[in-house]
Amino acid sequence: MKHLSIGIFDSGVGGLTVLKELLSVLPKEHYLYLGDTARVPYGNRSPYVLRRYAFEDAIFLLTRGIKLLVVACNTSSAVSLRFLMKKLPVPVLGVIEPACRRAVSVTKKGKVGVIGTRATVESRSYEKTLKRIDKAITVFSKACPLFVPIVEEGLCEHDVAYLMAERYLGEIREKGIDVLILGCTHYPMLEHVIRDTMGGGIEIVNPGLELAREVRSILEKERLERENGRGAVKFFVTDDPQNFKRIGEAFLGHPIGDVRLVRNLFPS
Amino acid sequence: MKHLSIGIFDSGVGGLTVLKELLSVLPKEHYLYLGDTARVPYGNRSPYVLRRYAFEDAIFLLTRGIKLLVVACNTSSAVSLRFLMKKLPVPVLGVIEPACRRAVSVTKKGKVGVIGTRATVESRSYEKTLKRIDKAITVFSKACPLFVPIVEEGLCEHDVAYLMAERYLGEIREKGIDVLILGCTHYPMLEHVIRDTMGGGIEIVNPGLELAREVRSILEKERLERENGRGAVKFFVTDDPQNFKRIGEAFLGHPIGDVRLVRNLFPS
Repeated sequence: MKHLSIGIFDSGVGGLTVLKELLSVLPKEHYLYLGDTARVPYGNRSPYVLRRYAFEDAIFLLTRGIKLLVVACNTSSAVSLRFLMKKLPVPVLGVIEPACRRAVSVTKKGKVGVIGTRATVESRSYEKTLKRIDKAITVFSKACPLFVPIVEEGLCEHDVAYLMAERYLGEIREKGIDVLILGCTHYPMLEHVIRDTMGGGIEIVNPGLELAREVRSILEKERLERENGRGAVKFFVTDDPQNFKRIGEAFLGHPIGDVRLVRNLFPS
Repeated sequence: MKHLSIGIFDSGVGGLTVLKELLSVLPKEHYLYLGDTARVPYGNRSPYVLRRYAFEDAIFLLTRGIKLLVVACNTSSAVSLRFLMKKLPVPVLGVIEPACRRAVSVTKKGKVGVIGTRATVESRSYEKTLKRIDKAITVFSKACPLFVPIVEEGLCEHDVAYLMAERYLGEIREKGIDVLILGCTHYPMLEHVIRDTMGGGIEIVNPGLELAREVRSILEKERLERENGRGAVKFFVTDDPQNFKRIGEAFLGHPIGDVRLVRNLFPS
């Protein structure tokens, strides 16, 4: 079991910011990464469709030998996690729960901000999870739909990023939060813009990092850690490996090698 | 045959700007509109996947009784049109050819600008079609990837629309074009911003309008026009009818009635 991989899926390149944290916290593990680029984005799809997509993604990874599954996509974590936990024979972790535990543990004012895609914010998953952990927490959420295309278009340094950050974050800044959760895998790429716009004294929570720490503690507890050597990563996408590579390397922070195209993930 | 509908498909709501022009030019016709919202956007998918999606969309409409098929999506028009023309027993029209004929007929300087999604611009479909019609035409193309999310987020009047228009169009404005083709179904929603940014003396071509005129002349020639009464529109989507209605009404310019959800377009 130890030598099996950690499976990780996302709708596209966003999950690479999560993989980046996993590689940093658990560099000895092997990883199988699936980006469902033929059906990206998951953000505005219905729960029925989302669960079907997530299940297909999970089965693809499972049949290739994994000891643990990471749902890197916030939308899938919000909508499909329980479904996957029930159906799969390996531990399944999403990005929401670890981030919420971290936010609750560091807030002093009990006021937490959450930003994400419209689907994530409307699902109220972060809000519900935060309140389940500590019902005294006040949550301020804001959807920032333009952040994803801004990141994917490489405009993280452009005026448009600051203009939209001001529009989206201005309101949440006034609420006196002291913790802000980046509830979308793309947003760590805009962390400098978000930090500048929010000003000092705000702890920013990157769910990918919290999830990576959680994966480490589960592997330790279950004695499932791979102990020697350097791990390898295999990348799979359902469409357009070149585009995934082109955009993805900035997300991962280093070059991406071979990306395999999977045509038969969803039969038709 | 006359009483059959005109079928029209798009990856989502964008094609409603095309339907709007059809309704204005051919108000007596019946229409079946399919938005493949479970798999939107088509923009960055590979030709293989795009042709499969387009074929499934087309067959869905064909089996419901259509006399003509409109491919409203620029990406599908670029990639899948010839494939559909070969496979289907009804006339199939895309948005590119009629727009190019119009552009060639109105340009005085022989310099035409084309804006669209990255996929449309990279396909060079407008460029190739313009040069096939008149090889002396010089074409300047520019991808404007943020325009679609700006429109879908209702930011057509916001500073961000003008900021991005300046970034995208500044370069093309310097080239001395006198015609600009809006090579994406979303862009007519930004026509005022594009017009302000480009300045006077530029003819803007809306491919939806040119396509509608072409459909009218084909129906006239084939004597397939529906002659009496007011036509009706039936809407189908592959996911989330509410979201389609919410965003789509601005695109169509009037309320959208019943939207039917189609689950079995693509079996799995």
